[in-house]
Order: sequence, then structure tokens, then C-alpha cells
Amino acid sequence: MTNEKFQPIAGNVSPRFAGMPTFMRLPHVQIEETDEVDIGIIGVPWDGGTTNRPGPRHGPRQLRDLSTMIRTMHPVSRIDPFQLTNVADLGDSPINPVDVQDALKRITGFYDQVLSRDVLPMTAGGDHLVSLPVLRSLAKKHGAMGMIHFDAHTDLFDSYFDGFKYTHGTPFRRAIEEGCLDPKKVVQIGIRGTMYGTDDVDFAEEVGVRIIRIEELMDRGVEDVMNEARKIVGDSKTYISFDIDGIDPSQAPGTGTPEIGGFTSFQAQQMVRLLQGLNLVGADLVEVSPPFDSSGNTAWVGASMIFELLCVLADAVHSRKGK
Amino acid sequence: MTNEKFQPIAGNVSPRFAGMPTFMRLPHVQIEETDEVDIGIIGVPWDGGTTNRPGPRHGPRQLRDLSTMIRTMHPVSRIDPFQLTNVADLGDSPINPVDVQDALKRITGFYDQVLSRDVLPMTAGGDHLVSLPVLRSLAKKHGAMGMIHFDAHTDLFDSYFDGFKYTHGTPFRRAIEEGCLDPKKVVQIGIRGTMYGTDDVDFAEEVGVRIIRIEELMDRGVEDVMNEARKIVGDSKTYISFDIDGIDPSQAPGTGTPEIGGFTSFQAQQMVRLLQGLNLVGADLVEVSPPFDSSGNTAWVGASMIFELLCVLADAVHSRKGK
Amino acid sequence: MTNEKFQPIAGNVSPRFAGMPTFMRLPHVQIEETDEVDIGIIGVPWDGGTTNRPGPRHGPRQLRDLSTMIRTMHPVSRIDPFQLTNVADLGDSPINPVDVQDALKRITGFYDQVLSRDVLPMTAGGDHLVSLPVLRSLAKKHGAMGMIHFDAHTDLFDSYFDGFKYTHGTPFRRAIEEGCLDPKKVVQIGIRGTMYGTDDVDFAEEVGVRIIRIEELMDRGVEDVMNEARKIVGDSKTYISFDIDGIDPSQAPGTGTPEIGGFTSFQAQQMVRLLQGLNLVGADLVEVSPPFDSSGNTAWVGASMIFELLCVLADAVHSRKGK
Amino acid sequence: MTNEKFQPIAGNVSPRFAGMPTFMRLPHVQIEETDEVDIGIIGVPWDGGTTNRPGPRHGPRQLRDLSTMIRTMHPVSRIDPFQLTNVADLGDSPINPVDVQDALKRITGFYDQVLSRDVLPMTAGGDHLVSLPVLRSLAKKHGAMGMIHFDAHTDLFDSYFDGFKYTHGTPFRRAIEEGCLDPKKVVQIGIRGTMYGTDDVDFAEEVGVRIIRIEELMDRGVEDVMNEARKIVGDSKTYISFDIDGIDPSQAPGTGTPEIGGFTSFQAQQMVRLLQGLNLVGADLVEVSPPFDSSGNTAWVGASMIFELLCVLADAVHSRKGK
Amino acid sequence: MTNEKFQPIAGNVSPRFAGMPTFMRLPHVQIEETDEVDIGIIGVPWDGGTTNRPGPRHGPRQLRDLSTMIRTMHPVSRIDPFQLTNVADLGDSPINPVDVQDALKRITGFYDQVLSRDVLPMTAGGDHLVSLPVLRSLAKKHGAMGMIHFDAHTDLFDSYFDGFKYTHGTPFRRAIEEGCLDPKKVVQIGIRGTMYGTDDVDFAEEVGVRIIRIEELMDRGVEDVMNEARKIVGDSKTYISFDIDGIDPSQAPGTGTPEIGGFTSFQAQQMVRLLQGLNLVGADLVEVSPPFDSSGNTAWVGASMIFELLCVLADAVHSRKGK
Amino acid sequence: MTNEKFQPIAGNVSPRFAGMPTFMRLPHVQIEETDEVDIGIIGVPWDGGTTNRPGPRHGPRQLRDLSTMIRTMHPVSRIDPFQLTNVADLGDSPINPVDVQDALKRITGFYDQVLSRDVLPMTAGGDHLVSLPVLRSLAKKHGAMGMIHFDAHTDLFDSYFDGFKYTHGTPFRRAIEEGCLDPKKVVQIGIRGTMYGTDDVDFAEEVGVRIIRIEELMDRGVEDVMNEARKIVGDSKTYISFDIDGIDPSQAPGTGTPEIGGFTSFQAQQMVRLLQGLNLVGADLVEVSPPFDSSGNTAWVGASMIFELLCVLADAVHSRKGK
Repeated sequence: MTNEKFQPIAGNVSPRFAGMPTFMRLPHVQIEETDEVDIGIIGVPWDGGTTNRPGPRHGPRQLRDLSTMIRTMHPVSRIDPFQLTNVADLGDSPINPVDVQDALKRITGFYDQVLSRDVLPMTAGGDHLVSLPVLRSLAKKHGAMGMIHFDAHTDLFDSYFDGFKYTHGTPFRRAIEEGCLDPKKVVQIGIRGTMYGTDDVDFAEEVGVRIIRIEELMDRGVEDVMNEARKIVGDSKTYISFDIDGIDPSQAPGTGTPEIGGFTSFQAQQMVRLLQGLNLVGADLVEVSPPFDSSGNTAWVGASMIFELLCVLADAVHSRKGK
Repeated sequence: MTNEKFQPIAGNVSPRFAGMPTFMRLPHVQIEETDEVDIGIIGVPWDGGTTNRPGPRHGPRQLRDLSTMIRTMHPVSRIDPFQLTNVADLGDSPINPVDVQDALKRITGFYDQVLSRDVLPMTAGGDHLVSLPVLRSLAKKHGAMGMIHFDAHTDLFDSYFDGFKYTHGTPFRRAIEEGCLDPKKVVQIGIRGTMYGTDDVDFAEEVGVRIIRIEELMDRGVEDVMNEARKIVGDSKTYISFDIDGIDPSQAPGTGTPEIGGFTSFQAQQMVRLLQGLNLVGADLVEVSPPFDSSGNTAWVGASMIFELLCVLADAVHSRKGK
Repeated sequence: MTNEKFQPIAGNVSPRFAGMPTFMRLPHVQIEETDEVDIGIIGVPWDGGTTNRPGPRHGPRQLRDLSTMIRTMHPVSRIDPFQLTNVADLGDSPINPVDVQDALKRITGFYDQVLSRDVLPMTAGGDHLVSLPVLRSLAKKHGAMGMIHFDAHTDLFDSYFDGFKYTHGTPFRRAIEEGCLDPKKVVQIGIRGTMYGTDDVDFAEEVGVRIIRIEELMDRGVEDVMNEARKIVGDSKTYISFDIDGIDPSQAPGTGTPEIGGFTSFQAQQMVRLLQGLNLVGADLVEVSPPFDSSGNTAWVGASMIFELLCVLADAVHSRKGK
Repeated sequence: MTNEKFQPIAGNVSPRFAGMPTFMRLPHVQIEETDEVDIGIIGVPWDGGTTNRPGPRHGPRQLRDLSTMIRTMHPVSRIDPFQLTNVADLGDSPINPVDVQDALKRITGFYDQVLSRDVLPMTAGGDHLVSLPVLRSLAKKHGAMGMIHFDAHTDLFDSYFDGFKYTHGTPFRRAIEEGCLDPKKVVQIGIRGTMYGTDDVDFAEEVGVRIIRIEELMDRGVEDVMNEARKIVGDSKTYISFDIDGIDPSQAPGTGTPEIGGFTSFQAQQMVRLLQGLNLVGADLVEVSPPFDSSGNTAWVGASMIFELLCVLADAVHSRKGK
Repeated sequence: MTNEKFQPIAGNVSPRFAGMPTFMRLPHVQIEETDEVDIGIIGVPWDGGTTNRPGPRHGPRQLRDLSTMIRTMHPVSRIDPFQLTNVADLGDSPINPVDVQDALKRITGFYDQVLSRDVLPMTAGGDHLVSLPVLRSLAKKHGAMGMIHFDAHTDLFDSYFDGFKYTHGTPFRRAIEEGCLDPKKVVQIGIRGTMYGTDDVDFAEEVGVRIIRIEELMDRGVEDVMNEARKIVGDSKTYISFDIDGIDPSQAPGTGTPEIGGFTSFQAQQMVRLLQGLNLVGADLVEVSPPFDSSGNTAWVGASMIFELLCVLADAVHSRKGK
Repeated sequence: MTNEKFQPIAGNVSPRFAGMPTFMRLPHVQIEETDEVDIGIIGVPWDGGTTNRPGPRHGPRQLRDLSTMIRTMHPVSRIDPFQLTNVADLGDSPINPVDVQDALKRITGFYDQVLSRDVLPMTAGGDHLVSLPVLRSLAKKHGAMGMIHFDAHTDLFDSYFDGFKYTHGTPFRRAIEEGCLDPKKVVQIGIRGTMYGTDDVDFAEEVGVRIIRIEELMDRGVEDVMNEARKIVGDSKTYISFDIDGIDPSQAPGTGTPEIGGFTSFQAQQMVRLLQGLNLVGADLVEVSPPFDSSGNTAWVGASMIFELLCVLADAVHSRKGK
């Protein structure tokens, strides 16, 4: 059943450092030629919403580079996403580095095309504001979705710098206000870091977003927390948003707003594995900032997590197809 | 009750990368103008006691730089130290990079001034020998104090290089000998690393210093260990000394004498939070060595721990005021 | 005649790594308290016009850090700018990282204040779009100015990304169109790098901007070229804009758009020294991008060039005062 | 009983950064002069089997450099390997960077000499293919051995690039095929990472190699797992092979094939300590790749683990001598 | 006359950090689909001949990444190679990291295909041994060629490590022996560095290779030297081999065998520009070693020099077509 | 005439990354066993005189590491210092990182031994204060010497920090005052950088030290300047002191007090080559600070310059022997 057109190049045939660095060494397919594609990995090289240290605009390229070290089969679930589904690298979304509103429009426009072609998007950011235009597209198709959100920050703030409402600290407030997300089906995991006030957490409480702080995660353990998370989203259409800064900065230093005391990449892997079986409609991995980690170590964590996400996405797509 | 003069600049008003990098974006106040100041954050840019890899002389500057990413409220205790007390950046103590004894005198001289103005000192080193002149000043005011000491090393050695008694491996032996510390009220947490002999631990046992090695900490857990630590110091006047090398070198590589297998920054946060309620008279964070981590990741851990320390110090100052 | 209030702290009194990193270790003076200030060094931590690799928003802080290694007297001209004039660090201009037009307004607003208080601005960027709002303020006071511009690029492009007119590749086209610069009195030195077309150089030719490419500079030598440059601006009010990417990337790698084959920092020093005697009204040094050179080597070149610029600015201010 | 000739130089006599960087600051002894030597630390600066990112050829030098920060006594077991046995740095094995088969021969040739002089080898690689020629030499003396193997990968693959059988992914398949290892006495700990298929694990199952994946290790804990490992090797002659990539890449980034979600260096220390009492005949530590971590942090972890290994090796040698 | 299919994506339409990093943002064309292609840029990700510090296997990928900052028109000659000819990225040649002879065969095999399709090859290495299999292919078509060779080393050595004849220090000795190069039409420019003996220069003298040491280049100047070089090759079919280590290591540190005191990148540009008009049949740029410069600065110099080479190659192809 | 005992290991026999990193891969000889040694390369791992950024204490080790890439014969003079003389690595001088006066004594003590055994010292620092104790030893033997001094700074200051007379900015003032140097036979080349005043240059003028600033060097050229330098020292016993910061910081960034606009490493090579024939009695290369350049690029420049110095020293020793 394997579609040979959509198989990654194997590292024991051609070494991983060889060849064009597409995501997972998959074929690069133009949006117009995605007829057979089930899942598209898409870069959004944009950080126009960044209020602090910049750089995630360079994320997709470094993630592609490091992703060439990923192989094809998951070592625990034994899922091979490239067997279950046709996955392709769809290249990068159009963006605009010097105008936020224009960029948001360009991104949504691209995702509208992706979704109109029935491709499930796995996004590689970019800063966290990237999630907003993606969710806008998805919501047109799916309505208000549930979301499982891994992050050090809630990204539920109202505005910055005296009234500016579109930054990487505000996407999910906007997405809830705009009806893209159903706040009662949103859970945020790993939250921590000093605060300027309680604006974000008050909003969360008000609208019903469940925040699981890092202390609670460490205390209850990964399995218990993920059981609750699964219950929150139930069988709703669900999006996964994974901010690399949820992981401890010793493992993912290349990010703009690190917070010490995070969860480990081992915990991250276990948590994502526990998302298998949900009704997933898309995912993103954001805030990898190469200028703050030119070694590529952070992007390696990011690429590894994209593979984990890809496995549960492919399983979801395959299951839905099977029905 | 907030004193507007002593409020940090908020990052959602002026981004964190903007403006002068004082500690926590606080006002820089000259020692002569500290009438309203309760807590002074003080840099001691000196590493004259370093026997191995140098660099902590650059610590205060990099810590100030990274500290501008700290916000104002603690996410768990909800303490805002800048509401409870007036905190200011007092700049750097005078030092001397080419003469140890002269430097020790200059530092004690500066802290004598600080204490005479009733300012509680939160020190950013510098190497660990910095603690000695600070303790000398504090002991003039408070007598022999208790100490909770986080570190990979005991720093209880007698001398180096054939009789040299003032290095970053000897400060607490000197402080005990000089009566600045009451050894029966001293507890050291996180100790590990290979040894040249048992000189230091024999001394500890002899005078009653309690050493909690890393294996014991990992085995008993943070809470149990901190209960014991709190009992050891009781309600005595207590100093906290936090050597960044107590934390695992993957999280804090920028230090001169790393030892693998340390506690995590998450554990460090939990431990310091459990110091709330003690009768604290000062604290230091030392051994951040920027030349060994130009990324600033170590200094970010350091700045984050300074904020944790600041919260328990502010709570202590506020409580005493309240009485 | 020395004003003690405006003297840098000497490195043989307090080492250069000690104390608050203001520009040149000068006092930090609020804009409201600049009565005695002749020259203000101002940071503009903003890179909202950057179309390629970001980071100059972090420039002012790293430049301040490295500038603490600068001493007080020029080794060749023996000018001590701090004796000739009162120089102060005025801190950073307000900016906005998520909206270009708002940022331009905030910057011009700040410079309007600076100029209304008769302070000559020495600006540390920020990307090159920073020059535009500064020139707008200066032009209100001085009319269309001459400019000596060191750069690898002309920054005379019309627009990017299908009609966006405010980027770091367009400031001087805008400034000429808006009448801030007299194009016949503008000379650009060091231009090089591959091209997408001749849009910029055609515009230059059309309006009379003189471009001295790197090959011409290398061929004729620094002195001959600077004689021509001095003639071009004559005794007009003249601005100096120094893009760090004019210097070869081996000496200044920390910048967003490097072009190989540049002039050396030695040549840069000689060129700026030959600007002494012009009727200077301001200067900037831009495009230092710390995330692309965390070593600080680029910022050290930048800080050294700011000192060179400061010497010729101070001489100009002093001369005008003397008249 | 101490042999003064084989004592490391102490860091409180001559600082650690001083002097020739031999392993552990031990004397460098030529192979011909090893009459009194019990344990030889040997570098194998070779990475000819590397199929991905190169660099371990530089491992021995950086490991020697960092090893000068190691002291002499183990902090928990209180073993001083330099008191129990005579340890020396035997320098580097001959190798050949441009021919795999020639290199394998040169290495085995050198180890044949080492073993003929009754020196137990502690090897610092080099990539993991280095283990094969070492095992070939050891097997001539000891027959098929047991092995405790710490790694992210099984290194049990058959071949690469269409039939090439000697790479750093195949050494233990070759060693088992050649009768150097008894597969029923081989245990692999820490295995993880994506897969191209099940070739390696199928082979393991077939021949009886026990694989303890990272999830099992994290779940059961270090002590339980090591009890099983000890049982597997029993009192057979046993080799320890420690691939630095077994440790999480946040702690050991300087390696060619990192896999996220590894065990910590604290766990690594506890695991090696639990090998005391086994019938050990040699050990190696491989895959430290300095070009991918010029900071030396990875080599510091490596050098620290070499010391842990040295302690259990010295104890084994000492015990056998005592009998 | 422009072929729209072979145009790079412009950076003022889509920013340079966006999209798949092919060479110069050109289309990636499979070898089978090169009917319209005049010049193919080909990566050879292999460093199997490296006797010292490894890493050039990673060269093609980092060169591709940085090459996305190159634009389309040469600023001095105004040549736009993408207007004159159809240029494409042909991806990477097959290689083998663990066997030198097999790798040489695979590379020659690939170039045989390229040449059979009448594509002129512009190669991005890889180490300098890469030139040998390329020259072997070219010589089948063109016979013994002339060569202009920029380098710090002659690469004319006979063998290493007791008889191994295929390393990155021997390619041109082999190529001359095998009749791929006509030694009387070979000139080497920039040679320097300490020596083990005169084996290579004696051979050069014997067979008639002209060596222009760095001192001679600096003394006579670029133009005079290049006049001589042009005379040496005359109108013969000529290959250009550019080893990045010819350039001073301050500008190109990411290479395995740096030698201080090299020519500048400015001089390199001028020298290559003076090759316009020769009868060029191919070129390579080798020895960029990303692990020794993760900043990408060296690769930026390399990508810039590839563009310079591309311009003179395109001009040659265009001229021959015109005849 | 070659003494086989004192030959470096050749890189085409054993690769440069293999084996113990002694200087130039020479034998490490204890001071007591130097009977046949003509020239000793000695490390002084000490930076106790550093008033600014520390680190040269790590210089000898990194210089040794990089020096293993040096071969044996000079490419221009064809001098092979290991044929002309017996050269050995004498290891490191004893030092003391925590006490300046004690360190000065230990160093002079070691050099007294070296000189008593008729070994000419080639010193690798360490900071520039290292030159003082070396000159004290040499002066006991040779009286007041001439000196050719390459540096960005005069190091002729009187004192720092209110009366401290022994820093890396004062060695030559002390050496002149103590009669170790004859100031009329001292020439300083490359001087530049901002000043706090004219204390040092006034002293130079007063006592007759000739300062050749960088502008004069660039203007007159290397040959003319070196002719003058040779005349100044004549046939006096002459010491060479080479501060790495004389070279431009783009080529030698790893140093504590960089000054932009320096001479190139190519010029440095030419200048040292022109010292052949002088009556040389010793040399040093100082201020390489590894923590500020972990890449080793600066140390590579340093090691290359040590080889240049070694060639002229060996020639001098050989000439004197010949007489």
C-alpha cells in the first residue's frame, strides 16, 4: 500500500547530510500538485508577532535541515507515517516580514488552499502568532475546535505596547474571541514563568480554558495529566499547538522567551504519544529561533517532536480514512 | 502602597531588549541615595579567588542583561517583591582584579555602607570568595549566622598552592573560623564531584556543618530535604548562598568548576520557594562565568534564581516590617 | 573647562567590566534633564524594517556593553570628546516591534524632543530604517542635509514584497523624496554585492547621488575618496550614516546582510577621521545584529566606530560653539 | 602502597589548566615501558566508520583536555583508582583516517601489544566502530565476552550503502558474528530513536541480546535495571561500552547521532557505579565529537564517565590481584 | 530570451530565509530532466580524503543555505548568469562516507551522466579529493585540461600514512599522472604554509606546474598575476579549482587545514573576475567545513565565490553558444 | 646532523589530531633532562596581571593543541628549526593564580633554571605581565637587553587601581626601571587604541623607547619599518615580545583587550621573518585567551607565529654555535 512517490530517502542508502533538506527528506510538492497528499508539512518563516528576541523566521529552514536525521518508523508505536498516509513537504507559506496584517492574510490565504485540497497541515513556525491565521483557516472548515497546547506561556494576553492586539503573546485570545477555538475544549500544559499580572489567567478562568501549570504536571505525572487532557477535548476536532519553549531551555535554548524549569523532551515525547486516537485536524510546532541556537540542537528537538506529532496525525488521518 | 519610584519597566510597555540593563529593569540608585531602599541588588564583578577557569568577574553584567527578561510577579506564590518592598540596583561594589586582600577590603567596605543604611543585600557575583567579605559585613551587624548553601562543592577547604588561604574553595572555612557563620546552623545541598581527599568533609563533620549530597537529595526529594534544612537554621538570622554550579551543567554550563549529575533548575526553584518564612538577612548567587557561556543561557538561569531569592527575601523583609 | 558630571569612569580606576554598561561609561541622563548636554548617544533598539536576518533590535545593548572598553582620548587627533563637549547616554528611544508606522512615529517623536533641547544626536541602531525617522526630525530643524554614507548597499530601493515602502532597503529613497536629504550632497562609499537590477543605482544617477563602489575606493585609496566626499557635502549641514556592513564581514560578521570584499576597519577609521572639520549635525551607526555575533566582536568594531564618530561630532560642536 | 610514579598532578598544587593534558593528569607512558601499569587509558582518534556527522577523531584530545579537571577519589565509593592500581596514559593507538580496513588492523595490532603486556584497556574513542578492533584483541585473550552497553542505538545493523559492513552502526553485529561477544550475555541500555526498520532488533532477539529501551529504564528505575544487567553478565568476563549518545543530548550535544529523550548524566553515574564487583576486562567511551561541541561540555561529561568507569575497572583489577 | 523556468526566486518578492534552500534559489532538477540545462550546480557531500579535521561532507548543504542570500546580477560585470544560460541545482552526487574507492567511482559515474547531457558542472565540495573524480569525467570528454587553482596548498603530494595515495592532499598529482591535467597549463595561486619537505614543489617543478606563492601575489598584485595565469592556460580547455582555504582564515575559518596570511576575499573576487574570456569547462569550490564554522560566515564567502565563478562560466558557455 | 630525539611527529605519518598535544608535537622534556636542548618552548599559564577580560591562563594548552597542525620547514626561508637546533617542550612554568607576587617569583625561579641549563626560552603566555619575570631572569644573564615589541599597547603604564604596579599594562615600565631592558634599544610596533592620557607615551619619549604607531606602519610598509627596528637593536642581545593583540581582532579575536585596525597576520609573518640575523636571546607570544575564542582560530594564529619566531630563534642559536 506504500506510495513510493512519498517515501523519505533512507540514511543507509544516501547519508543524511546529502541531498536537498526537505522535511524528513520527503518530496517537495507544489500546492497545485497535492492531489494524492494526505498530510502537508508547511513552513511559515515569519516572526512578525515577536515582542522580544526575534529569529523564528529562520525556523523552517533549520528544522528542515535537522529533520533529515529523522528515520521513518516510530520506535514505540511502530507507526510509519509514510506508510499510513502520503506526506509531503509543501514548502513555505507566503509571508511578509514588514507588515503584520498583510502577513496574516497571506498565511490564511495559503492555508485556505491547503485545506481546500483536503490536506491536513503540520506547520513548522515561525513565532506563535502563526497559529492564528492557521486556526482561522481550519475554523472555516471545522468550526470551533478543541486544542491541546504545550507551552511555557498561555499566549492569552489582550494586547501589548498600548493597544497592539496581534503579537505572539495574544494568538489564542484572538482565536477564542473569533470563534476558532472552543475555550472549554482548550487545555494548556507546562505553563510557568514570571508574570506582569493575571490578565491572561483570569481570562482563561473566565472562558473555561484549563491551565495545567508545570508544578502540577511534575506532581501528577505525564499519564494522569494526559488522561485529563484527552477528556477535555473528547472526540471534538482537535488542534495541537506545541511551543518549543514548553521544553526546558537546557534542551531547547534556541527560542525567544525561555523559562527555566520546563518539562523534558522525554516527557514531551510521552505526552504527544498519548494523543494517539484523538480526532486531530492539524498541529504546529513553533518558536524555534535558529539565531539563538546555531548548533541546531533546538531544531533537532523540534524536528523530533514534529515526527512525534506526524505519527499521531497520520494515525488519525488513517483511522478516519478507514471509517 | 506601591512605590512608583521602584517599579521595573514592563516588557509589554517597553520591550525587554530596550533600555539600560539594570537588574530587573529597576532604577539604578547610588549608595548615598538609598534612604527608601529595602533591598539592594549588588554586583561584585570579581573572580580573584578563582583557582581554575576564570570569568565570574563578568557575571554581574550578563546577569543584569538577562534579568531584563524577568517580570514582576511570582507565578506560584504570587509574591511581587516590588510591591512588598522597595528594591533597587545599587550598581557594583568596588573591587580590585589584581590583589586579593585589597579586593576583600574594598568589598567589605562597600557592604558596611549598605548595611549601615539598613539595606538588605542580594549579591550577584563574582566567584564564591565574594561571599566571605559580604559575610564579614553582615556578621558585624548580625553576629554568627545560619546559612543554607546550594552548591556542588563544600568550599570548606583550608588552602591551595602551598598555603594560600583565600580562594573560591575556602570562603566558608574562613567564615566559620572568623565567627561569621555558626557551623551548626549551616547546611550544604547538592554536594558532589570527585575529591582530592576528605579535608573539607572532615572539617564539616568536626564543626557540625550538615552536608546533603546530591544522591541524598535525589533519593529523599526536595520537600523532605528542605524541611530538614529549615529545621537546621530555625529562626536564626540566615544567609542563602547559591552557587550556580549546584545546578546541572547542562542547564548552567557557564561556570568554572562544573560537576555533572546536578540538581535541575526546576528542583532549584522548588527548593528556594521552600525558604519562604525564614529569617533571612541576605543572599548571593555566584559563579556565573559569561566567557564560558556567551549565549547567556546560564545567566538566564542565574537571573531567574535571583528572582526566586528576591521573592523570599522581600517576604522576609515585609514580614519583619509588619511586626 | 571639564564638566565633571559628564566624564566616563576610567578603566584604571574601576575595571571596564564593572558597573552599569552605559555608552562609553557616561552618565545616563533622562531626556528631561539634558540642559547641559551637547551630544546625546541614543539607542534605537528596533529592526522592524528588516527584510532578511533580524537582530539589530539588540544592537544598542551589546554596543553599550562593548563600549565600556573605550577610553577617552583619540590616539591620533588627541581629541577628547568628553573635554570638548558634554556627552551623555540618553537611553533608548521608544519603539514598537510589531508595527512599522507606529515605530517610525515614536522615534521621530523622541528625536523631536532631543533636537528641541539642542542636543546633537549620535544614534546607535537598530536597522537602517532607523535613519529615516531621525532624518525627519533633523530636517525639520536643518532642512535638506548632505550625507556621507558608509555601506555595502545604497538603501535607495523603492519597495519590497509588492509595494511595501518602509524597509531597511529604502530609507534614503524616502528621505530624498521627503526632502530630508539633498541628493546632490549625498555620497555613498563602499557599495558592493550582487543585485536584482539597477533600480537603486538608476535612481541615484537620476537624482545626483554619488556612489563610490568598493573597487573605486580600493583603487583610489581612502584619502583621495574622502577629499571628493568632503567636496560633495562642502559646508552644508551634514549627516553621517555608518552601516556596519560596509566593513568586511570578517571584521563585522554580526549583521543581517553581509557582503564579502568590504573595506577594513582600519580604512573605516581613516575615513571617519577625515570627516573632521565638516558641518556635522548628527550621525548614526546601524545594523549591528548581536544574535549573529554573540562574541561581541562586531559590536566592538561598532563601539570603536561610534567613538571615531563622536570625536568628529564633538569637534564640530565645539567649533560651532567657538564661533 | 601508593606508587608515586602513577599519581595525577593535584589541582590544588598546580592548577588544572596547567601542564600537559594527559588523561587525568597521569604520566604518559610508552607502550614499551608499561611493566608496572595495570590499567592503560588509550585514545583511538578515529571516526572512519561514521556514516553521518563526523568528528570523534578529535575525541581523545578534547577528553584529555577536560579530564584534567577530574580529581582522584570517588565521592561515593571513596575508591581512588590511582591508589588501587597503577594507571597510565598510553597515548593514542595508530589509526588511518582514509582506509577503514587498514585502520581496523592498526588498532587491533596496538591492543594486541597492550594485552600482551597485561594492561587492562580503558579506551577513549573515536566512533563506535572502534569497539570492534578492541573486542577482537580482547577476545583473543578472553574468548567470547559479556557486554554491558549504554547507548541510544543498538549498533547491530548489518550493512550500509549497499553492502558496506564496517560502520559505526555495525560493530556489535560483527563482534557477535566473529565470536568476540556472547550475545546471551549482552545487554543494551537506553535504546531509542526513530528506525528504518527492525533489522537490528530482530537480530538481537534472534541471538539473545537483551535490549532495555529508554522507556523501560525510566519506568523501572536505574537500580532494578542494573540488577538485571548484572545477572545477564554474571561472573563472565565482561566489557563495558559507553556511547556518549546514550545520555540526553542536552547534556552531551557533541555527538554525531543524537536522539532526544535520553537518560541523564546523574542516571549514567548511578548505573556505572552499580557495575562494581563485575568481572570487568575493559571498557570504552565513544562518540564524543568535539566539532559539534567546542565548549567542551560534552567532553566534560565524557571525562567524568571515564572516571566512573576507571573506578569500577580499578576495583575489578584490584580484586583479581587480591585473589 | 530569459527562460522563466530557470530563474531564482527574488528576495524582494519572497524573503531569502523563505523556501527550500537550493543553490541560488534555483529550481532543483533531476539529472534525467536536464535537457534545457546549460550549467548544473552539483553538491558532492563527501570528505573521505580528509587527513586532518573533517566536515566538508556538510559543505553542500550549508553552501545552499547561505547561497539563498545571493541575488542575480554581478555588480561590476553586470553579468546575470541566469539570463545568459539556464542554470539549475542538480542536487548531490552519490557518495560513500566509509569507502574511498567506492566513493570515487560513484562520483565519476554521476559526472559522466552530467557531461553526457552536455551540462557544464559547477561543483560544491566536499574536500579537495572531490576534484579528482570530476576531472576524470571531464578528461574523458576534453582530454588533458589546463587548470587555474586557488589554494593555500599544492595538493601535489604523493601519498600519506605509508602508501595511501588518495587523500585531499594528492588529487592533482593523481590527475596529472592520469593525464587529466596538462601540468604545463596548471597554475597554483596563494600557496603558503609550513612544509614537511619539498616533495610537492619538486614534483611541480619537474612537470612544469607554475606555483605563485602568496608573497609573490601580494608583491605583484592581482592583475599582474592573473595576466600570467591567463597566459599559462591560453585558450585551452580550462578548469578552475577554488579551495576556500586559499582565502585568509579570518574570512574563511570553517575549513580543515587553515594557513594564516592568505589572500582576502576582495582579492579573490578580483582574481576570479579576471578569468572572464577563458575557455572554461568546469569549476569547483571545495573544503568548506561547516562544523568548524556553524555561523555560516565561511559558507557565505563560499557561496559568494560560487556566484563569481558562475558568472565567468556562464559567460564562457554563452560565448561558445554564440559561435 | 639531525637529532632524532627532538623531531616532531609528522602529520602524514600520524595525523595531526592524534597523540599528545605538545608544542609542535615535540618531545616533552623535564627541566632536569634538558642537557641536549637548545631551545625550550615553555608555557606560562597565568593571567594574574589582567585588568580586563581574563583567560590567557588557558593559552598554553590551546596553543599546544593548535600547534600540532604546524609542520617542520619554513616555506620561505626553508629553515627547519628542528634540524638547526634541538627544540623541546619544557612543559609549563609553576605559577599561582591567586597571588601576583608569588607567581612572579615562581616564574622567575623556573626561568633561572632554564637559563642555567643554557636553554633559550620561547615562551607561550599567559598575559603580558608574564614577560616581566622572564626578562628578570634573562637580564641576570644578559644585562639590559634590546627588545622588539609587537603590540596594540605600549604596556608602559605606571600603575592601576590606585597604586597597583604589577599588571599586564605595566611590564615594560617595570623592566626598564629595573634595568632589564635598555629603553633606547626598545621599539614598539603596531601601537593603537584609545587612551586615558599620555602617561605611557610620555614615559616612552622620556626614556627613549621608539613607538611606531599602526598608521606609520601602514604608511611606510613592513620592510622600511623593520629596517629601522633592526637598526634600533643593532647587534645587542635582543628579546622579542609578541602580543597577539597587535594583530587585527578579526584574525585574533581571542584576546582580552582587542583594538580594531591592527596589522594583518600576513604582515606579522613578514615582520618576524625580517628579524632573522639579530642577536636573539628569547621571545614570547602572549595574550591568547581561549575563553574568548573557543574555535581555536586565534590560537592557530598564535601557534603559527610561534613557529615564525622559532625559525629566527633557531637561526640565531645555530649562528652563535657556528661561531
